[in-house]
Amino acid sequence: MVQFVGVSEIRRIVERVGIEQVLTRMTDYLEADFRRWERFERAPRLASHSKGGVIELMPTQDDDLYTVKFVNGHPYNFEQGLQTVVALGIMADVATGYPVFLSEMTILTALRTAAMSALAAKHLARPEARTMAIIGLGAQSEFQAVAFRAVLGIDTLRVYDVDPAATAKFLRNMSGRGCQVIACDEPGSAVMGADIVTTVTADKAQNTILSDNMVGAGVHLNAVGGDCPGKTELQKDILSRASVFVELTEQTRIEGEIQQMPADFPVTELWQVISGEAPGRTRRDEITLFDSVGFAVEDFAALRLLRDLSLETGFYETLDLITSPSDPRDLFGMIASPVMPAARAA
Amino acid sequence: MVQFVGVSEIRRIVERVGIEQVLTRMTDYLEADFRRWERFERAPRLASHSKGGVIELMPTQDDDLYTVKFVNGHPYNFEQGLQTVVALGIMADVATGYPVFLSEMTILTALRTAAMSALAAKHLARPEARTMAIIGLGAQSEFQAVAFRAVLGIDTLRVYDVDPAATAKFLRNMSGRGCQVIACDEPGSAVMGADIVTTVTADKAQNTILSDNMVGAGVHLNAVGGDCPGKTELQKDILSRASVFVELTEQTRIEGEIQQMPADFPVTELWQVISGEAPGRTRRDEITLFDSVGFAVEDFAALRLLRDLSLETGFYETLDLITSPSDPRDLFGMIASPVMPAARAA
Repeated sequence: MVQFVGVSEIRRIVERVGIEQVLTRMTDYLEADFRRWERFERAPRLASHSKGGVIELMPTQDDDLYTVKFVNGHPYNFEQGLQTVVALGIMADVATGYPVFLSEMTILTALRTAAMSALAAKHLARPEARTMAIIGLGAQSEFQAVAFRAVLGIDTLRVYDVDPAATAKFLRNMSGRGCQVIACDEPGSAVMGADIVTTVTADKAQNTILSDNMVGAGVHLNAVGGDCPGKTELQKDILSRASVFVELTEQTRIEGEIQQMPADFPVTELWQVISGEAPGRTRRDEITLFDSVGFAVEDFAALRLLRDLSLETGFYETLDLITSPSDPRDLFGMIASPVMPAARAA
Repeated sequence: MVQFVGVSEIRRIVERVGIEQVLTRMTDYLEADFRRWERFERAPRLASHSKGGVIELMPTQDDDLYTVKFVNGHPYNFEQGLQTVVALGIMADVATGYPVFLSEMTILTALRTAAMSALAAKHLARPEARTMAIIGLGAQSEFQAVAFRAVLGIDTLRVYDVDPAATAKFLRNMSGRGCQVIACDEPGSAVMGADIVTTVTADKAQNTILSDNMVGAGVHLNAVGGDCPGKTELQKDILSRASVFVELTEQTRIEGEIQQMPADFPVTELWQVISGEAPGRTRRDEITLFDSVGFAVEDFAALRLLRDLSLETGFYETLDLITSPSDPRDLFGMIASPVMPAARAA
């Protein structure tokens, strides 16, 4: 039997454990896996494109576990009231190849993306950072806010969205969560005095959500929204002034903010900072940038945590996905009943 | 909700519909999809290797549906009483990227591999063929026998396996299925007088299950077991005498029997024969060979059929894999309950 966590179970798990605690533990799981980055198979994602969007497979494995995320990206789903991104995950045992865990990953990916941002900021932002600006108040924004509150102690949020309804939703969801939220009229006012600036807009275009003059010394930039070819949020000049940290260099050069820069633009991989092989922030006035696009190792850590949480809470179902004939060579005997000899004519 | 067919449901479906009928319809679905072969995305499979085996992802899509098979190959699982191959499948709607169907594919792959062999033989074997030899009586053997019985009217089976227990299992499973089964002491005697020879052995090595002198004029060879690098069943000389038909040329040159031949060894892709673009058998005394390795389009057809059969019979469960927040941007509101303001101290 394969352990299964669907939407209702992940909701129960998060309710039981508490979303702050889930995000904190997710950050720990991510940190542990980034520390042993070189132990993972790092295959490119496999993308199937169509008119309406893309379906991707993101596999990775270490010596013990294999995971793959199935995830789509369909920007126009929004117009039909559907999610633009839906995901599911499979975990298998490397020794036998048997699937052991299957789960929804739409909510799980939202949690892991926020925890990943918080992990990067923990290593790159100034330690005394308490104020974060968020530009873009879509589906990912509250996850970011709660993760930064839980992991870094952010207590003030300066926020902006083009759509007042998105701002209202954000204010409603963040009410009572221990953060002062200041809704701003424009991005320029949101970033004022912020120690950390998170950009997480949805529009698929080369936008300038942040222009160069908006980014002051010492700020940590958490660029979440620029995550595929043709989709960026930062003015190029910012990148030239910043120390840029990425997940997997070759992937980020195609999908991240640095797609705007030459192929030899210097970057540091975040795992090197986390494992102590490379410095993170070296000066108080340095601008650091986490150019986040998402990588399979993060889904691996997220699935690992969700499986543990579901075992701890007992919130899971089981799926009969595995055949187990008494004789492995007798698959046919499992599926086809023996045929009775036809009654002989008298 | 996502439609789900597990092991117990596929067993119920096959029992209700009848395995011969399932295999016949599977052959029709395969034929329909091979006829429109060029409409499919034909990506290479994505393999993750480890000490004990391999885990593969096999995706494809047409304009409407996307499918991916997760499948492992762990030859030593057998020693622990586990299946060497376990698979599961996902089908998604190309327009939205949403998963619509999820199923076990261990049994389904056994069915589709046999139906695929029968489809190839329908187009390549002599029409009057009634006797088939089967060398290798493992998990796939009865599926082959029943598919050839149902689709081509094969009524005599001459069979051989190194292990008498496998032969006994085959005889038991085929009892009452309308075929005369003749258990033979050696491969050479099994192939005698056979119109079709199916080789489906499991040993991962360059073996000579059939040597050149065992293959007479006019025979159709159905080579199922030679399906990965370093695993072949036929003596090279046979290939030189035969007209060879494959699924996808570049994949078969690596995985099939023709890995023994030079890179320019001439082959015909089976979809060309089925769609009328290339001839199949042209002479009664021609030796035809279907060098089968399995391809994603076959899994696509198989998942399509299983979904239809499960809707027809009503045998399926549903999985809550899809989040559906009332506002697609309010994923957070789905997972985190609103926080009550703390009671004010008196």
